[in-house]
Amino acid sequence: MDGVGGSDLEERARAVIPNGMYGHQSVAQMPPGTPQFFTKAEGTRLWDTEDRSYIDFMAAYGPNLLGYNHPQIEKAVRAQMALGDTMTGPGPVMVDLAEALVGMISHAEWAMFCKNGADATSMALVVARAHTGRRKILVARGAYHGAHLWNTPRPVGTVAEDRAHIQYFDYNDLNSLEDAVRMAGSDLAAVFAVPYRHDTYADQVELDPEYAHGVRRICDEHGALLIIDEIRAGFRLARDCSWDSVGAAPDLSCWGKVLGNGQPISALVGVDELRGAAGEIFVTGSFWFSAVPMAAAVETLRIIRESDYLEHLQDIGAYFRDALRGQAESHGFALRHSGPVTMPMILFEDDPGFAQVNHWCRIAMRNGVWLSPYHNMFINGAMTRGDIDEALNATDAAFADLKRNRAAL
Amino acid sequence: MDGVGGSDLEERARAVIPNGMYGHQSVAQMPPGTPQFFTKAEGTRLWDTEDRSYIDFMAAYGPNLLGYNHPQIEKAVRAQMALGDTMTGPGPVMVDLAEALVGMISHAEWAMFCKNGADATSMALVVARAHTGRRKILVARGAYHGAHLWNTPRPVGTVAEDRAHIQYFDYNDLNSLEDAVRMAGSDLAAVFAVPYRHDTYADQVELDPEYAHGVRRICDEHGALLIIDEIRAGFRLARDCSWDSVGAAPDLSCWGKVLGNGQPISALVGVDELRGAAGEIFVTGSFWFSAVPMAAAVETLRIIRESDYLEHLQDIGAYFRDALRGQAESHGFALRHSGPVTMPMILFEDDPGFAQVNHWCRIAMRNGVWLSPYHNMFINGAMTRGDIDEALNATDAAFADLKRNRAAL
Repeated sequence: MDGVGGSDLEERARAVIPNGMYGHQSVAQMPPGTPQFFTKAEGTRLWDTEDRSYIDFMAAYGPNLLGYNHPQIEKAVRAQMALGDTMTGPGPVMVDLAEALVGMISHAEWAMFCKNGADATSMALVVARAHTGRRKILVARGAYHGAHLWNTPRPVGTVAEDRAHIQYFDYNDLNSLEDAVRMAGSDLAAVFAVPYRHDTYADQVELDPEYAHGVRRICDEHGALLIIDEIRAGFRLARDCSWDSVGAAPDLSCWGKVLGNGQPISALVGVDELRGAAGEIFVTGSFWFSAVPMAAAVETLRIIRESDYLEHLQDIGAYFRDALRGQAESHGFALRHSGPVTMPMILFEDDPGFAQVNHWCRIAMRNGVWLSPYHNMFINGAMTRGDIDEALNATDAAFADLKRNRAAL
Repeated sequence: MDGVGGSDLEERARAVIPNGMYGHQSVAQMPPGTPQFFTKAEGTRLWDTEDRSYIDFMAAYGPNLLGYNHPQIEKAVRAQMALGDTMTGPGPVMVDLAEALVGMISHAEWAMFCKNGADATSMALVVARAHTGRRKILVARGAYHGAHLWNTPRPVGTVAEDRAHIQYFDYNDLNSLEDAVRMAGSDLAAVFAVPYRHDTYADQVELDPEYAHGVRRICDEHGALLIIDEIRAGFRLARDCSWDSVGAAPDLSCWGKVLGNGQPISALVGVDELRGAAGEIFVTGSFWFSAVPMAAAVETLRIIRESDYLEHLQDIGAYFRDALRGQAESHGFALRHSGPVTMPMILFEDDPGFAQVNHWCRIAMRNGVWLSPYHNMFINGAMTRGDIDEALNATDAAFADLKRNRAAL
């Protein structure tokens, strides 16, 4: 256990939860010693069951945009809680929230709310098929769009038919997309795209605007819908849909994670032409209409519009990237820091089995900094340059330790 | 608008939400004048946007088991909120919750948590296929198990392959089940069942224990898993899985709605033999590990174990049923009150187009009582005999109005 984490609790967990944990928050792929449970979160910090604190570069795998327990959002949450949350109908706040999203996202003319990101991507798929009367859905190889039957990255327990009409292409490769479009023929309903390529265990690839324009053009030529999955990157790149921002407006986009700054809510928004299809499908969930996460989202969106949170994320992210590069060089390491600075992926050169980055993250974790060796990370709005300086002390120790132990890995 | 509901808000909603609302909380199937939005909920009451109050027999379509804003559950929620909710890992409360469920549900040896009911039913399907290596899933015709691609009751926008291996049988009919089992042959993975038959627009049918034993026997004979979907009825019939209670223990069961008394959380629990398969699949969601709904669920389960809430629901439900029957008779109506008294379905004899029950609910609604003409309702723990007496005043006026206007319907 490396002296970190609550082993008694983890043993109790293994007795009543398969493998002790499941899904993306399992630490099975993380370095040994990564705590599985947290007792507390505040701003940009986490505390484990032994009261050790961590500067958190993971932001709950995305949802924490503005800081844990953000005072203004908590205030909005408490005010709505006193009125009502899960009721026999939604609260008026649902309309405020739909208006806010429609006002902020250029292509959006309507919104529907749900809970998980995959609720939104599945809803997009259903709307696209209902509208076009076609079946084929194109998805970039390796892109994550949720863990429903048709898109889970580990298909154990699913059947071939779940993906009967899902076809794959390579991100950032218009020839590959055109091949897939040809195969779909007159049955092509929609193309899914992510704001930029953010697969696990790989360098991130930022969006090439020409590629985005090409995808939009191909969709138009074939009467197919373009769906952008903003669930992971939404509002960390722009205050609008990121493809709207480069002039390649989609027909539908999926939002989640940050929408309520940690409160459970996701959304599908779309162009006016799809209003009919969106009104014909039947999708729902017991808690999709709950008012508290909507109140949190209204306040989160207000802060997104009115504050300089995005410039702050960019400033902090650039400061971290630049300082880390210098630190790596001074220790003799070549770091690959890829993707937008607000969502960094950090890998090492000449590290085919990920042993170096794993060791480095393990030592940083032991020194109070939560870094991922395989998944992009997330800068959050509560981070200060002081937090980054503190994190850099831990990464400095991690580089030094890695240098001493590299040969033995 | 019949003088009820917030029409300005509904107009704003139609501009930014397809049809103004979607899913099970849309009032499209409800009588005219049913408010679409609620500003407040407390105990067993709702308030609409014009500050009219309603005694709520719908309980948020199930989640409200013990009363809106239940003080002890709210206290647990606030305590966990101050610590953390959606973090980079779950809180220790997740283990407490899994232990509580395993302790209460006879067949449960492990638990996995999610958000929507359909997350749990889809997870059950995937575990069953992963464990058995077979594909066929048997579902009762008309039973609702969520609105994912394979089970949405209105399949607009889905494809035939989504149900390629879903086969149907008639509830409470072992011959029909045996026919479906024969068709599935050696590819039979699992049979879904609900605690009792609670379809919309139909009388409810209580569980026949002999039928339950027959289903269990058939599953055993064919090496198929038995999955009970307790999402709607869980903890309103028993403090255990309802099929465990009649000696027909399932292999998996799905829980949701009431689990956190309105906080968003659902669960899959299973027998020890399925632990391996449950640990192999990949299912997850951004908010599945959030600590606040888990804290609410721990407290809800404690109250379920330690209080007489269930006997109270049964007492209130029987009081309502008996009084309503007498009232109907005195007005010359034959009412069909079906299902468990804690989850009543109320329909009228000789009412093939549902015109009478719709009119009756409309007048009751106008008099401050929220009743459904097509969906089973839910008694909640905050209801008193005084509330029922008040509701009976409204239903009395509704019967009288219906008598006067019946000929014109």
